[in-house]
Amino acid sequence: LNTASILVNGRPRRTVDVLDRGFQYGDGVFTTIAVRAGIPLFLDRHLDRLQRDCAAVGMPWVGKDTLLREVEQVLTNQGDGVLKIQLTRGVGGRGYRPPASVAPTRVIALHPSVSYPASHEQDGVVVRLCSTPLGINPCLAGIKHMNRLEQILARSEWGDSDYAEGLMFDQDDQLVEGTMSNVFLVRDGRLLTPVLDRCGIQGVMRSILIEAARGLGFEVYECRLTAKELERADEVFLSNSVIGLWPVRRVEGRAYEIGSITRRMREWLKTSTQQAISAGFPG
Amino acid sequence: LNTASILVNGRPRRTVDVLDRGFQYGDGVFTTIAVRAGIPLFLDRHLDRLQRDCAAVGMPWVGKDTLLREVEQVLTNQGDGVLKIQLTRGVGGRGYRPPASVAPTRVIALHPSVSYPASHEQDGVVVRLCSTPLGINPCLAGIKHMNRLEQILARSEWGDSDYAEGLMFDQDDQLVEGTMSNVFLVRDGRLLTPVLDRCGIQGVMRSILIEAARGLGFEVYECRLTAKELERADEVFLSNSVIGLWPVRRVEGRAYEIGSITRRMREWLKTSTQQAISAGFPG
Repeated sequence: LNTASILVNGRPRRTVDVLDRGFQYGDGVFTTIAVRAGIPLFLDRHLDRLQRDCAAVGMPWVGKDTLLREVEQVLTNQGDGVLKIQLTRGVGGRGYRPPASVAPTRVIALHPSVSYPASHEQDGVVVRLCSTPLGINPCLAGIKHMNRLEQILARSEWGDSDYAEGLMFDQDDQLVEGTMSNVFLVRDGRLLTPVLDRCGIQGVMRSILIEAARGLGFEVYECRLTAKELERADEVFLSNSVIGLWPVRRVEGRAYEIGSITRRMREWLKTSTQQAISAGFPG
Repeated sequence: LNTASILVNGRPRRTVDVLDRGFQYGDGVFTTIAVRAGIPLFLDRHLDRLQRDCAAVGMPWVGKDTLLREVEQVLTNQGDGVLKIQLTRGVGGRGYRPPASVAPTRVIALHPSVSYPASHEQDGVVVRLCSTPLGINPCLAGIKHMNRLEQILARSEWGDSDYAEGLMFDQDDQLVEGTMSNVFLVRDGRLLTPVLDRCGIQGVMRSILIEAARGLGFEVYECRLTAKELERADEVFLSNSVIGLWPVRRVEGRAYEIGSITRRMREWLKTSTQQAISAGFPG
């Protein structure tokens, strides 16, 4: 990545202040967006979630117009990639206490596309169960914030490429999400996904798929799920904004078919993505 | 702060790479050290904890000699202040997954002294109870890591200066610590402090005071404590490496005397601090 691909507070550079609260405390929020043919997919929804997440951690909102302008600038003449927007509480304050007047730092970075095997989407992935638990904290639940050590420890549990993802459980053994994705189960024709009111990240792709599934006439339940429900599921799939949707073909020893609902959702997403690309910026 | 007060990987500067995992994910650990007359107090213990914390999050240790050299460089000709050492997992990796070969980033920054009222140490402080809970996660418990949003949200609960600190409870209503300090209760002549095996930070000053109290012949128990034990305590005090020891004279509606054990520990720390200053670098 050269400096041209990163804007910090609107200026091309690739450094931030050591004293930025993002670096001091992970005091910020972020989102990660797939870019196809220069179009940031579902950008509006990502900006909406950023705004919600800023409110949730008590940070002022920098404004959609500013972000739209800077995203467009970073994406000029770019093809495919991954766009990451970070908003931090900026520099200042006394220890953990935020400053009286917050000037958020915004970092907009275009990264190269991540090259996952095409088979992940086509034939499904093998997933493991992580032993690192997610702490329960309703104050932070759902927010895509910059405190991500739990995911890092979980992702450090395995190094081989046999596993494409690991599933995480909370301190009460409830299934929550993958280290970088949300998870859906299908059982008796209905979709089930963990309710994220105590921990986990409310993925933009998760919301898109929930709405889409309901639009297609499926029942979707956000609920408490355990390893038992995972074991009993007819189908399992993962989602995030960069990978889209990956069917799961195995979780540890348990194999799954890529069933009709997973295929239907994958097809819907493919079409929807094409429409977003055709619609052009801001996608 | 000018650049002379900060070293990043041994060089005077005040920026870090946007892609540093410390800024991306809060993927690092830190410690905060009181500096008196150019001497970093209890430096050895801080470096020991840093080393333990690096191991706990799976980061390579940068080495004591390197840190000692750089700390000495930052402190040259300095008087009082607060020294913060941050060690992050550096740049690289694919998403949350750490890179195969980690080159940690080290940031050594000398901040001006924090000017708390002298009465805090002398006459005690008024403390509130925070509603922001601490999530329980044994994998992260005790570690002074850079994921500190819980403390920030808790510290954002109040803005007036009536309260010097706020106490935090975990998701199971167990007393854990202050937003920036550890907490000790005295009951029937014994010291009680929350056991930090599920959340919280193992403060260097906390360890020092536990050892010192035992050395002075007091019984010290690390145990599970609730609001009830707090209410029933004869004495309460707070500790961290920068404030030293603050007696608590009130928690919400409950008043406390500055009792004999609190006074004894405060006296011990004063003497011990003077000895550390006299002993000179590395303190």
